[in-house]
Amino acid sequence: MKYQGKRAGVVLAGCGVYDGAEIHEAVLTLLALNRAGAEIVCLAPDKQQHHVVNHLSGKESAGENRSMLAEGARIARGNIKEMGKISATDLDLLIFPGGYGAAKNLSDFAFKGRDCTVERETERLIREMHDARKPQGFICIAPVIAAKVLGAHGPLLTIGFDAQTAAAIEAMGGKHINSKIDEIVVDDNNRLVSTPAYMLASGIAEVAMGVEKLVGEVLRLCR
Amino acid sequence: MKYQGKRAGVVLAGCGVYDGAEIHEAVLTLLALNRAGAEIVCLAPDKQQHHVVNHLSGKESAGENRSMLAEGARIARGNIKEMGKISATDLDLLIFPGGYGAAKNLSDFAFKGRDCTVERETERLIREMHDARKPQGFICIAPVIAAKVLGAHGPLLTIGFDAQTAAAIEAMGGKHINSKIDEIVVDDNNRLVSTPAYMLASGIAEVAMGVEKLVGEVLRLCR
Repeated sequence: MKYQGKRAGVVLAGCGVYDGAEIHEAVLTLLALNRAGAEIVCLAPDKQQHHVVNHLSGKESAGENRSMLAEGARIARGNIKEMGKISATDLDLLIFPGGYGAAKNLSDFAFKGRDCTVERETERLIREMHDARKPQGFICIAPVIAAKVLGAHGPLLTIGFDAQTAAAIEAMGGKHINSKIDEIVVDDNNRLVSTPAYMLASGIAEVAMGVEKLVGEVLRLCR
Repeated sequence: MKYQGKRAGVVLAGCGVYDGAEIHEAVLTLLALNRAGAEIVCLAPDKQQHHVVNHLSGKESAGENRSMLAEGARIARGNIKEMGKISATDLDLLIFPGGYGAAKNLSDFAFKGRDCTVERETERLIREMHDARKPQGFICIAPVIAAKVLGAHGPLLTIGFDAQTAAAIEAMGGKHINSKIDEIVVDDNNRLVSTPAYMLASGIAEVAMGVEKLVGEVLRLCR
């Protein structure tokens, strides 16, 4: 319980890999934070998801709407806050699990690549944390958001070794470093940590290796 | 990877504590099984949930319908099978995470208590596994299903120490044994293992303690 009192923001952009937060990555983040004694503050923008995907068929569920906040609340067991009401002064660290929610809801990277824009409250909070020199963790595809928002600061990031995504990160101002499933990349200057998780993992036990390292390093950076 | 080749069924009755499978319990079950090298077979009945609950407000989302199978697919990352197509010959063990899905979708225990009925395919598969002497694990509130289906065999079960739920288990033919958050109860005769998880837990790290023990014991029983 080494990190008791550290307030850890976890951004949940829905609930499900294809249209929201990747559930395993999110839950493993919560597990590592709770084991370390941190105080968990789940967050989501109070906005509709880009769309809803039926995770059985893989097809878009036409006409259906779901909110990032209400769906993220499923992972948070109801204990979640509206991101617009949270500032960097409320947190000691911030972590973004992956899933398409990061690339469809928190940004439109899935559709526009390097020309993407980032959801307004997400961009604000990342900038505030960076300005305050508070550490942030980005899992799986979420590092593309950090590249877009913090590109002017040349952030070191990893999404594993997918060449196309790595090139987009570099085009947005980031420096991409290839990594393996159980590795993290640490940017000490910008206080950023990233890990590939399901960009590379073949199973949840592999995801746990990277996520546990990432959470540990983000916590160390906020001491 | 001691249990490579063991086929582990995991029943996902939706996605979210208030109307489906409890997400943390489900994910921690998958983690423990994957770490042990077991082959995971996620399952759900191809039926509508009893209802949909907005996990932010806690209120029923009137007029909305969601299917256990399509929502369970979110936890399973799309890799889930229809329970009606699976028999005990396809599995070496079967585990039921908790959440209200166990008491609203797989049974109506949340509404009828000891007079509940159990969803048809769920009852069939539990009976088949029991007849084949294959081990089954029941987490959180899910042991009430085992009590109802296997009551004639006097199953030993735990849901922690909630007196009302324990009395209902006994009324259905079970023998309830009080337990703490990190404990499991093992019924060697009937090859059942249960643990209280979020019936008692104050955080996900506590849930992990019981779920890891339960998965380990269910795997040992199927050797």
